[in-house]
Amino acid sequence: MDGWDKPGHAELMSFAVAGAISPLAPKTIPDMPAVAGVRLATAAAGIRYQGRTDVMLAVFDAGASVAGVFTRSKCPSAPVEWCRTRIKTGRARALVVNSGNANAFTGKSGRAACALTAKLAAAAAGCKIAEVFLASTGVIGEPLRADAFDGVMANLVAAAKPDAYGEAAKAIMTTDTFPKLATASARLAGTTVTINGFAKGAGMIAPDMATMLAFVFTDAPIAAPALQTLLREGVVDTFNAVTVDGDTSTSDTVLAFATGAARAAPRIMRANDPRLVPFRKAFNGVLANLAEQVARDGEGARKLVEIVVEGAVSKHSARRIALSIANSPLVKTAIAGEDANWGRVVMAVGKAGEPADRDRLAIWFGGIRVAHRGARDPAYDEAAVSAAMKKPEITLKVALGLGTGRDRVLTCDLTKEYVAINGDYRS
Amino acid sequence: MDGWDKPGHAELMSFAVAGAISPLAPKTIPDMPAVAGVRLATAAAGIRYQGRTDVMLAVFDAGASVAGVFTRSKCPSAPVEWCRTRIKTGRARALVVNSGNANAFTGKSGRAACALTAKLAAAAAGCKIAEVFLASTGVIGEPLRADAFDGVMANLVAAAKPDAYGEAAKAIMTTDTFPKLATASARLAGTTVTINGFAKGAGMIAPDMATMLAFVFTDAPIAAPALQTLLREGVVDTFNAVTVDGDTSTSDTVLAFATGAARAAPRIMRANDPRLVPFRKAFNGVLANLAEQVARDGEGARKLVEIVVEGAVSKHSARRIALSIANSPLVKTAIAGEDANWGRVVMAVGKAGEPADRDRLAIWFGGIRVAHRGARDPAYDEAAVSAAMKKPEITLKVALGLGTGRDRVLTCDLTKEYVAINGDYRS
Repeated sequence: MDGWDKPGHAELMSFAVAGAISPLAPKTIPDMPAVAGVRLATAAAGIRYQGRTDVMLAVFDAGASVAGVFTRSKCPSAPVEWCRTRIKTGRARALVVNSGNANAFTGKSGRAACALTAKLAAAAAGCKIAEVFLASTGVIGEPLRADAFDGVMANLVAAAKPDAYGEAAKAIMTTDTFPKLATASARLAGTTVTINGFAKGAGMIAPDMATMLAFVFTDAPIAAPALQTLLREGVVDTFNAVTVDGDTSTSDTVLAFATGAARAAPRIMRANDPRLVPFRKAFNGVLANLAEQVARDGEGARKLVEIVVEGAVSKHSARRIALSIANSPLVKTAIAGEDANWGRVVMAVGKAGEPADRDRLAIWFGGIRVAHRGARDPAYDEAAVSAAMKKPEITLKVALGLGTGRDRVLTCDLTKEYVAINGDYRS
Repeated sequence: MDGWDKPGHAELMSFAVAGAISPLAPKTIPDMPAVAGVRLATAAAGIRYQGRTDVMLAVFDAGASVAGVFTRSKCPSAPVEWCRTRIKTGRARALVVNSGNANAFTGKSGRAACALTAKLAAAAAGCKIAEVFLASTGVIGEPLRADAFDGVMANLVAAAKPDAYGEAAKAIMTTDTFPKLATASARLAGTTVTINGFAKGAGMIAPDMATMLAFVFTDAPIAAPALQTLLREGVVDTFNAVTVDGDTSTSDTVLAFATGAARAAPRIMRANDPRLVPFRKAFNGVLANLAEQVARDGEGARKLVEIVVEGAVSKHSARRIALSIANSPLVKTAIAGEDANWGRVVMAVGKAGEPADRDRLAIWFGGIRVAHRGARDPAYDEAAVSAAMKKPEITLKVALGLGTGRDRVLTCDLTKEYVAINGDYRS
């Protein structure tokens, strides 16, 4: 984790470990507008890293509706438990996120660190402790010294400003090689509203530098139950359809905040309100954009891989087959080797445990059909497939020929760099 | 796959790719006795490899009871389907196994190749086609030219001899770096009987060089239904408790043959016959020995890793948690890096979806407790753990503190060599 540039550098990209930005990183970082009712600030609390920011505060001066989805891990981090308990109130005034320490598997001291962080933030922001939401990412099992936030919290609230999204995204990075930002606008019953988001991932899920975290902010006036439904439905085909290594973090967290500062818009109480259709599309677009950036920053990734499964007996079955392919080390290493190895895809389909009939299976790499009706496609042009496999973005499609179930997941290849990142760093 | 030594070389180990024998290979290869009623022979049919044997015949001149367990893949190979259909008869006269081609995802031509192979073997051995059992391992999706066996089958039957286990184990190797052989004897109601076995694995399950195959032979007189029960129960804690990469082959096959040539022993009709107790122990020992050798030859493996889970709510739950740990790329790369990264173990426990309470969890690496009651063990001596992690064989134990469920699986580490073996070979 050495070699981070100093925060405040003009070029956001330069925040990554020098020279190590993923080749799949987006070419540009979006210009992030303000979201009325949201102010952000960052600081260097010295949790683990030297010479960079590691704590981010978002403050909602007039409050916000809040919704959240969390890891399914049976051993979640202390901040996940904190948020899960408080999300039911639907009301937030502040969000504090730190990098460098995940506050996971830290037992009682972890719960105490959450309570202290929230107390410090509440005092600085002038709100209730229960209105403070928390997330942490970094090493597991080391106590989080939350007293380090004591000196910085009041300054953060004072310094927070509406245009600090880039700095906020940088402060929460761990093994990420670039900050992940997305923005969209939508019409809500005649009023234009904004949706901003940022995320961190990398080893989506590398629980050492733990975790996929994402935060979304809007000025749309959406009641908490409606926002919760929107978010729960929105992650299904975005964050839950991305996998780097199949490992599930103790800390995965997506939180959405709606300040309601766009007062000209009507307050939306139900997720199925027809006026919400354009907003939902834009909101899901932000989630999808951030999720794709997580896959693009998969540890050691050199290829972005889209897995499309169609003709399954259901969408659920297609998802399970797509994830079986996406998480197969043998498929992922073959793609790293630029090898259209459909035999391994057959294997991964077979092991998913879902209905599949080998004799109806067809497989495409980069739009070229390589297998058809239980055997190699006789028309398969090895040179064309080989050229397709050299591209940085590859679509692998499987048609099962059984029904109309279809799904799509994103992943990346498995390279020696993944092993180096996850195996070499301490030995 | 270049660089294979010529078959017939005095030292069996030399059959592996020069210089590439797994550092975890057993130091010696067992001296295999004959099993009365079993003759074996090998030949070079030129299926894929040059300058080595690639087909193995076992012939049971007086017949044998047969039992089998097969991959759970929904897309099994043609030989798996062949065996599954015929195993119900319980009667075998011959076994033909080829390497170089898995005859998987080969559609109608695959079924025809099985039929032709069995026809050729039946003609040579003078038995019914339905008494011939088949297995294939190698590339997927390429038609198997079974007519290549035409010239060799009669010679194989004529040349077969009782002491050719070493040659047989070599002929079925693909990416294996050493042949896998095991033998045991047991008393069966006062008569000594022999149990021989050989296997191939490597990428246990690398479906390119597809498959884990194992074959066990005994002269004990055991009826097919009893043998089937013995085998089905025997694989649970042996072959089914080993994982290299979590990928499931289209071709995994374990077949057991009992010739009954030990005529002084009583014919055993039921698996729960108390006279079978010592035999069962020896039989399971052979399966366990072969399964461990498969883990020791995991592609790129540098560490043999035993995962022990105890205190789970059931054995089934302990197995699921153990496999979640064993298949976690983050745990496996940490072990490759000689890093006692218990945070990743917590993650893998959490993602298994089984009952687990973080605050009761304890974790040991190499017998040293590193985590205890929801936090890092305060007594944890980093230097001692670091020394333990440098050993070629490592036990990782997790205690859940919930119940009495216990289980154990074997795996290996995930190294850059695994990625190289599976990603570099074609590009």
